[in-house]
Formats: sequence, C-alpha cells, structure tokens
Amino acid sequence: MFLRVVESVGDNVHDLSEGDTVLPIFLPDCGECADCKSQKSNLCSKFPFLESPVMHRDGTTRFTDMKGESIYHFLNVSSFSEYTVVDIANVTKIDPVLPPNIACLLSCGVSTGVGAACRTANVEAGSTVAIFGLGAIGLAVAEGSRVCGAARIIGIDINPNKYEIGKKFGVTDFLNSATLGDQSTSQVIKEMTDGGADYCFECVGTASLVHEAYASCRKLYSNAGWGKTVVIGVDKPDSQLIFKSAEVLQSGITLQGSAYGGLKPKLDIPVLVQRCLKKELELGKFVTHEVGLEDVNKAFDLLIEGKSLRCVIWMNK
Amino acid sequence: MFLRVVESVGDNVHDLSEGDTVLPIFLPDCGECADCKSQKSNLCSKFPFLESPVMHRDGTTRFTDMKGESIYHFLNVSSFSEYTVVDIANVTKIDPVLPPNIACLLSCGVSTGVGAACRTANVEAGSTVAIFGLGAIGLAVAEGSRVCGAARIIGIDINPNKYEIGKKFGVTDFLNSATLGDQSTSQVIKEMTDGGADYCFECVGTASLVHEAYASCRKLYSNAGWGKTVVIGVDKPDSQLIFKSAEVLQSGITLQGSAYGGLKPKLDIPVLVQRCLKKELELGKFVTHEVGLEDVNKAFDLLIEGKSLRCVIWMNK
Repeated sequence: MFLRVVESVGDNVHDLSEGDTVLPIFLPDCGECADCKSQKSNLCSKFPFLESPVMHRDGTTRFTDMKGESIYHFLNVSSFSEYTVVDIANVTKIDPVLPPNIACLLSCGVSTGVGAACRTANVEAGSTVAIFGLGAIGLAVAEGSRVCGAARIIGIDINPNKYEIGKKFGVTDFLNSATLGDQSTSQVIKEMTDGGADYCFECVGTASLVHEAYASCRKLYSNAGWGKTVVIGVDKPDSQLIFKSAEVLQSGITLQGSAYGGLKPKLDIPVLVQRCLKKELELGKFVTHEVGLEDVNKAFDLLIEGKSLRCVIWMNK
Repeated sequence: MFLRVVESVGDNVHDLSEGDTVLPIFLPDCGECADCKSQKSNLCSKFPFLESPVMHRDGTTRFTDMKGESIYHFLNVSSFSEYTVVDIANVTKIDPVLPPNIACLLSCGVSTGVGAACRTANVEAGSTVAIFGLGAIGLAVAEGSRVCGAARIIGIDINPNKYEIGKKFGVTDFLNSATLGDQSTSQVIKEMTDGGADYCFECVGTASLVHEAYASCRKLYSNAGWGKTVVIGVDKPDSQLIFKSAEVLQSGITLQGSAYGGLKPKLDIPVLVQRCLKKELELGKFVTHEVGLEDVNKAFDLLIEGKSLRCVIWMNK
C-alpha cells in the first residue's frame, strides 16, 4: 500500500519526474545534512523522525476534509489514501519492475528486519542468530540472516505455529518460550549453542526480552563472551533497560539499537529492490493476504489474530 | 615491572625457551578454546579471567613463605617479586629490543587504553573523541586515538593540570568538569562539536560518567545520532547502568565494554611492540617516575597524589 506513482512534483524537486514509481518511507533522508552524508547513521537531523502531524519542511498540512478543515499527516507519508502529499525527503524512487505487492513491503518492517541483520548486526556466514519474536519483523531478521549465510537461526515465540512459518524464512530451531518450565530462554539457548548466540535480536518491544536477548549472547562466564544484542522492538516510552556495569565492561557483548534496520532509504532501498529481482531476497512469502482498501479493517483483524504476516492493501482491487 | 626474562619452562611448554623476554599479562590467552580462536573476543573461556589466588590450570599455589605456608597468586602474574611462576596462557613473548621500562607498560593499562581506541572503538581518521578521565588509561585512549588519526580529542578531568599533560598525548581540547556550572559535560561537548562526539570513553569507573559519555555521543534529537560509548573503567560490583529503551533503540548509539582494550595478548601485543619500535606509538611519555622495588610504596603515594602516570619499578635499580 505504500507504493506510489508520482502524479506531480513540486517546484524545487529535481530528482523525480511524473510517472516515476516511488516508495514513500516514514524515515526522512534529506541527503544534505551531516547525518545523511555520514556512513555512521541513517537518522536525518535536518528532518528528524518525529511523529509529526504536519509537513516537516514548512509545518503545514496539505489535506482538508470536505468542510475545509485540516486533516493531519501520519508518519510523514499518510498512505491510507488514494492520493497523498509527501516531502521529497520521504520518497525513494525504485525500479518499477518489482511487483507492487512486493515492493511495498520495503517501506517499513521488512526492510527494518533485513537491515537489522545485514547492516546493524552485519551477520556473517556460519554464525548463530537468536530472534525474539517471529512477527513480520522477526521473520525479516531471519530472512536477512539467511541471506548473510547464518548457519543457525533460532526463533523464539509463544505461538507454536511460528515454527512452520519460520522455516520458510531460514529458521532452523524454534523455542516456545511459554513452555520452557523453570529454565529461562537464555539458559536454553546457551545449552543449545554451547555458550550462546553470536547475534540476538529483540523484535517485540519488551525490556525483559532485551535483557533475555543480552543474556543469550555467547557468555560462558561473566567475563568470557562476545556477540551483539540488537534492539528493534518499540517499548513503552517510560521503559528502562538496566544492566550491571561489570557485565557491560567484561562480557564482551555490544548493545545497539536499529531504527529502520540502519538503512538509508535512498541509498539502500534501491539495492534491496535489485536483490529481490535477483531472487536473493525472497519477500513474496511475507504476503499472506491481499485485500482492497474497503477491507482495510479486515487486514487489522488478521494482524491482531496473528493470522497474517503482511496483508497488502490494494487501492483498486 | 611486569617484564620478565624466562628462567625455566615447564615440561609441556614448547613456545618459550630460557632467556626469552616475556610480558606476564593478567588476561589469559590459551590459544586453544573457541573464544581464543575467534576474532570476536579476547576473553579466554578455558581460563576465564577471575581474580583467582591460585594457578588456574591445577588450582595450586607455587609460592611458600619461609615457614612453608602457602602464599597466594595475584591476578595470575604475581609480579611484585623477583621471581614468579606464571601459566603459559598468561605469558607473551616479545622482541627484547624494546627498552624494558617501555615494554612493561604493555602488560595492562596502556594496552587497555590504546586497544580501546584502536580495536574496540576502531576510531577512524578525522573523527572526534571524548575521554572521561585522563589517568594513564584515558591518556592511552588519547594516544591510541591520535595514532588512528582522530581530528579532535576532548579530555575531561577534574584535575586542571591534566590539560598540559594531555596535550602530549594528542588531547586537543580540555574540559574541567568540576567548573562547568549549570551545564553538564555532555551539554558542553555537544555545543563544542556541533552535536556530539563520534566516540566516548569512560575511563574512571563511575556509572554516572558512563551515562554522561553516552549522552556525549552525537545525538541532535532523541532519534538522530551515531557513535559508540566504550566502557573501560571498573565500577563497584553492584553498580548499574540504566538507559531508556527508546533511546537505545532510536539514538543510533552503540554501547560496548572493553576489557584489556579488546586485545588478544599473544596476537596483538607483539604488534604493539613493533609499533613502539617504529615510533608510531610513543609510550615513553607515560613514564614519569622510576624507582627500585624498595621504594614501591613511594610509587603508590605518587599515584594517589595524582603526580605520576606510570612509575616503573625496577628489581635492581
């Protein structure tokens, strides 16, 4: 639903033309600020990602209802509509050859998961990965890890159906964390992996799971280990992460957050599109349902019931 | 004082000969376990670093007093003595050409600081570094950052004399954190650097300074930044680090501990020795005092008074 064809461009926009196929992406990429120019960040500082209800460049809205009252923007892209107005910083031009029901997946969660594995963690061939939460983002981490050549991908979820689903994305081992009895998930992972995983991803948004992910990294003793814990899930605003200073110092484990998978929209998304076209990345398996906009509430119901991974919504189906 | 010449080797030791010049190093490096063989860690799991009072391979002590009572080992190397017995995992053979009062610095703190900059953080040319605490370890971080080509090295200390000292190690800017008034150190660093430093090192061992270091990494908004906070200082055992989940997720900042600078004793220390011989690393400036073993307490006094960086203790001076 995030895929668009450009209808018209503003006066000062030179990188797009009418008829271009584009992805509106919530994360701004102005391409001009120090952060956008740096290889160290994908977080634009000219237009920092805020849940702003207005256009970030001039503070206005571009929508009105039939009475002329302002309608606000949503996450910079306002994509639940047939037409929308988006700042050029939130639009990435892509190859129109990729089928639209696949291309649209790259606007948010699937890129986030794939990027978290391939960019933030930089998973290397032969490594062991543990993924907490096998929703679409967790499965995208699995897909990214599979593409990077991970030897073992351990999925953790409380929905037992996720094992069969996960296998399609490269998940090699499954733990139902609701049925482990007295053992913690990290204890079981340590036993399974002879000490712990190389990369652990939290894809739910719960502080206790970040700690469990941290504890699942390789660590034989308080001071013999390695690995990276990547935080992807969005927790409540007041949530805290508490670590022992000595463990941070001596465990050898790195803690890192990953927003949009560490990807720069305009630089990295066209590359992911090409990897999809080459069948390296196989994203079709995320699309479990497709509905028209008139059935948008059905899409939400499927998500809440845990029945869908991604329900593509067509404007004209 | 940590430099030794091998007097005799055990039956199963094949990598050393009598007369070899060696550094006893507190961090074990067995060279055989998965951790020693991995590029991801410098923390041996066969002989994890514990403050053990006995030989880690067989649990015995090798020293007795004149009455035949056991004397325990200290940090695996027991180096405040003319002779000592050390496991081969804690001994690194080095080039004897490097003067002994320089070579001995590589046993612990100086390697820790240099490694934290060059290995753990991997500081790159042109970057900005902030170092909390300009003791010998913090100054070694400065020296490592200088060698890596950092453009700006900000030293933070409450001892104003450390600015002049720090300049010799590449410190370009100094903050006396005791005299900043209402502003926090991180606020001042953000203003000085137009957003924050690329790499921030905590070299004191205080949780509040880890948080200040984290807050000093580039971060223009809650969700536009980058950088790495490296924890080197050893805090009290019950000390905790508390972060907001959302900040970890969205700030772009990485948190990583660095034990012995992330260096593998047997692999990396001979390389540092060569870099000293080539004058790339200039370690002579750490040696502010030299005394004989009979004056060992004077060395501690100088340290406590903040007058020395490193006081080399000679067995026969």
